[in-house]
Amino acid sequence: MIEFDPSIVAALSVYSFIGIAVFAITGVLAGARKGMDIFGIVVIGIVTALGGGTLRDIILNVPVFWANNLFPLMIAILASIIAFFLADRLRHTSKLLLQLDALGVAVYNVQAIDKTLLLGYNPAIAVIMGMITGITGGIIRDLLTGRPNLLLRREIYATPILAGGIVYVIIIMLIPGVSLYAGILAVIIVFSIRTAAIRWKLTLPEYLLFSGKEE
Amino acid sequence: MIEFDPSIVAALSVYSFIGIAVFAITGVLAGARKGMDIFGIVVIGIVTALGGGTLRDIILNVPVFWANNLFPLMIAILASIIAFFLADRLRHTSKLLLQLDALGVAVYNVQAIDKTLLLGYNPAIAVIMGMITGITGGIIRDLLTGRPNLLLRREIYATPILAGGIVYVIIIMLIPGVSLYAGILAVIIVFSIRTAAIRWKLTLPEYLLFSGKEE
Amino acid sequence: MIEFDPSIVAALSVYSFIGIAVFAITGVLAGARKGMDIFGIVVIGIVTALGGGTLRDIILNVPVFWANNLFPLMIAILASIIAFFLADRLRHTSKLLLQLDALGVAVYNVQAIDKTLLLGYNPAIAVIMGMITGITGGIIRDLLTGRPNLLLRREIYATPILAGGIVYVIIIMLIPGVSLYAGILAVIIVFSIRTAAIRWKLTLPEYLLFSGKEE
Repeated sequence: MIEFDPSIVAALSVYSFIGIAVFAITGVLAGARKGMDIFGIVVIGIVTALGGGTLRDIILNVPVFWANNLFPLMIAILASIIAFFLADRLRHTSKLLLQLDALGVAVYNVQAIDKTLLLGYNPAIAVIMGMITGITGGIIRDLLTGRPNLLLRREIYATPILAGGIVYVIIIMLIPGVSLYAGILAVIIVFSIRTAAIRWKLTLPEYLLFSGKEE
Repeated sequence: MIEFDPSIVAALSVYSFIGIAVFAITGVLAGARKGMDIFGIVVIGIVTALGGGTLRDIILNVPVFWANNLFPLMIAILASIIAFFLADRLRHTSKLLLQLDALGVAVYNVQAIDKTLLLGYNPAIAVIMGMITGITGGIIRDLLTGRPNLLLRREIYATPILAGGIVYVIIIMLIPGVSLYAGILAVIIVFSIRTAAIRWKLTLPEYLLFSGKEE
Repeated sequence: MIEFDPSIVAALSVYSFIGIAVFAITGVLAGARKGMDIFGIVVIGIVTALGGGTLRDIILNVPVFWANNLFPLMIAILASIIAFFLADRLRHTSKLLLQLDALGVAVYNVQAIDKTLLLGYNPAIAVIMGMITGITGGIIRDLLTGRPNLLLRREIYATPILAGGIVYVIIIMLIPGVSLYAGILAVIIVFSIRTAAIRWKLTLPEYLLFSGKEE
């Protein structure tokens, strides 16, 4: 049985509330379209912030994390309303927000992996759950607002989540009692690759981009 | 513990079958596109009629309401087939159908809130579940048929559901034994605001419409 | 209680792994767009191959079939990676792949019906679950890649699944102990109608295509 340091679990819980707020705000900034009303905007913010964890919990067949704890929903609603009113001002800070988003994804990833492992699932499934938690919210947002989703873009978004997740589960399986440090390392990996991708507009190398004829 | 009057529960159950039929028919009329075959049409009708309640039950982690009771599915299929063959004729009654749709949403809302509260969830979660039940079916229909969904339109659709839901849970929390009257009041609130919105093409006021730059 | 022949259950399990690989490959060939990277391609392959069974299990409120068994996921990932690198070569075999896809749908259908009946659900629900398992993966793929989904196309895809499913449940309800032969018959029905539809580009007859005005 893999053991988790309670302090990292607590730290992640606290941080995840910041993550929810950032996801909701960046969700609104990316998803809002002229003429949408505040209701539509708040739904977009909520879906972006909570969609990934919701699908994770549904697949894991456990109670959805926001159904028995009002905090996540309240934070997502509040952050979306703030983003609605301050959208133009927040755009000036969009680089900061992208970095906070990268940090949010990194933390969500470790949390989802921990949750899945604690339920007794295989580490490979845990890595997949980290991925689902990180990317689903943004994909649903893009479907709802009619934009190309991240699967269609060349931008590196999901690859760092995968890399961090694999490193994390390998370390905690091999070395007992280091989940705190492994978690921090995984967050650093995801965050650094993602911010590097933003900074230098990195894509995967050419031979990993689809060049076949489309159907 | 909030108590529910059995008569309102029974009345809502009976009414909900009418609601399912109306949702399926309006779903077909709004979603059908030239050249779709009857199979696609029936799927659109089913998804519109049952999609919201299905997502509600999945999130609440309870058996999906139509899996152990054939009535909802049969009604949705039958109503969709009727709508397929009588589409042009039914359009002449489209104002009536929109009003029935408003009544359907109003009843779904109260039902979903009752179901969620009876499962022991927080009233705020119950209001959210009323909303999810009311809007999800139409959103999935629009995704499947490539139309702009209601989050992107200015038309007031979800706001009355929210207003009715909040009024309903406040009353039944504050005054015991009035769930029947509170339910009727909530239905009237949702129905009146929604039909007023249809009649006068109401939108939210300008300052609640997104005017920021799009990304 | 309907009884199942263990040999058909085992045969279906083995075959279903081939079905997953074929679904992933045809999913990639149909869904890939120029410029998508290998990560996006693999997600498309996984979603096409596992999406239908995932939704089936979520609705049935049972553990998702790939969460406790790594094989389905590994096969879907491997097949998607192969499809990514060999896309242009595989297209030359696209007729073969379409026929394998038809066989895959046929087997998924019988499996889903068996699973649903074994859980004690009504045969009509089982037929619906066969349908959901067969078509959901392709529909999500088309949503994610911005293509018209099969509900919007005239091509006959879902009707054979429905026909095979209905024949299957009627036989096993009426005649005990023939589930093996009934399953084989259902697979033959779905496969033959579907391959005939591919071969002669069949659609449903004109009066079953929607001709009403669109909204």
